[in-house]
Amino acid sequence: MIGVFDSGIGGLTVYQALRRSLPAGERLLYLGDTARVPYGTKGDATVVRYAVEGARFLARRGVEALVVACNTMSAVALPSLAGIVPGPVLGVIEPGVEAACRATRGGAIGVIGTAATIKSGAYPSAIVRRLPGARVIDRACPLFVPLAEEGWTDNAVARAAATEYLADLPERGLDTLVLGCTHYPLLRGVIAATVGPSVALVDSAEETAKTARTLFPRSRSGADAEEDHFYVTDSSERFREVGARFLGRELNRLELVDLAQ
Amino acid sequence: MIGVFDSGIGGLTVYQALRRSLPAGERLLYLGDTARVPYGTKGDATVVRYAVEGARFLARRGVEALVVACNTMSAVALPSLAGIVPGPVLGVIEPGVEAACRATRGGAIGVIGTAATIKSGAYPSAIVRRLPGARVIDRACPLFVPLAEEGWTDNAVARAAATEYLADLPERGLDTLVLGCTHYPLLRGVIAATVGPSVALVDSAEETAKTARTLFPRSRSGADAEEDHFYVTDSSERFREVGARFLGRELNRLELVDLAQ
Repeated sequence: MIGVFDSGIGGLTVYQALRRSLPAGERLLYLGDTARVPYGTKGDATVVRYAVEGARFLARRGVEALVVACNTMSAVALPSLAGIVPGPVLGVIEPGVEAACRATRGGAIGVIGTAATIKSGAYPSAIVRRLPGARVIDRACPLFVPLAEEGWTDNAVARAAATEYLADLPERGLDTLVLGCTHYPLLRGVIAATVGPSVALVDSAEETAKTARTLFPRSRSGADAEEDHFYVTDSSERFREVGARFLGRELNRLELVDLAQ
Repeated sequence: MIGVFDSGIGGLTVYQALRRSLPAGERLLYLGDTARVPYGTKGDATVVRYAVEGARFLARRGVEALVVACNTMSAVALPSLAGIVPGPVLGVIEPGVEAACRATRGGAIGVIGTAATIKSGAYPSAIVRRLPGARVIDRACPLFVPLAEEGWTDNAVARAAATEYLADLPERGLDTLVLGCTHYPLLRGVIAATVGPSVALVDSAEETAKTARTLFPRSRSGADAEEDHFYVTDSSERFREVGARFLGRELNRLELVDLAQ
């Protein structure tokens, strides 16, 4: 059983990619800390505390390995999660960085994410470790998460926000842009239109699912595995509604939980 | 000593109005639950739980009366806070409603706020109780909070969002619009430009401060009162920075606290 842990709804893009990538018999438990979302505007100590609580909750539910779907948590809390589950803990940053370093031609890579992810510097340092000559331009785009949650992914507001955040990037010579937040793939169209066809977009969710496939090639849950389970910490109504939009199907097993228990 | 309780930074607009309105000797303790902000996208049960925790924290710090600066908390949690402090508990909704009912000429009143405030129906029911023939148009504007926090209060994105949310309101005949969220006064200019000069804007923060002045005419803290104190639940760095912008001065006594203690 693999846990998929996110601060809220956005991690469903990672869940969806994992579900497509992993064997059908591998059961996934999803935890969205919807009572305390977003993590991306909070301080490191708070994010680490919430991450440890969530990982412990999933460990008590029998999860053997963990995919941290949230970029902010992957950026600031991954080392704190080692040893809480018996198996590996996979974040979304390394897979995204690997793909960006493969995709770039000139070594100029852009990274966009939440304020906390960008402030952590996790992407630039991982990129430069892997590709020492790389030039990284990173930028926080805090409005993109509420835009995606409002369903405003292709209207005048989304276009104006993308222009405000990204319009200068192409002239600065970058050829690759990492979507360093689980919500951003929903805005992929407007982002692509703003930066133009010369910039390759890298989706961390997709890349993480590919890495997970190599880490977990065989099903651990057996052929008679139960259906995937979704845990949330705030009332499930909104998660059910937005989640169905993300996944294109109903979420059957959805449960409200208290992480302290 | 009066507690001013908000889910985050936005309540500083209420604090500022109270500070101008109340006697200088009345000490204010501000609590912003910045680790769990925003409340406005969360379910009622979660908001009530957080509200009770915060009010108990302020009661332990010796607060005698409470001003709930957050519209969402005022809408869904006010009855749950009765009796936690010895004195009165004042929310921001009743003062805003009173002012709107005084301001309207034709009885068509608009209310804008977070998803949770609007879903609660607290404003329309309070307006109709006071002005039985009133016609209320309410609308959630979730993007306005992140816009205000990004400092995008008068750019193309703010104008596009205001147009998307509000452009149809004037033709629907309303003459008064309540800014039913503590962040919205920061967007007052772009909101006023969108709805036009025929619509009177009511600022709940200002109206709450006027009501507080009548409830607490004399200082309870004495002439030798200590300076106001600000408590936050997430790292104070961002609060210090944005708070200084809200108040136009530095926040001297700022402390990170855990509400469970």
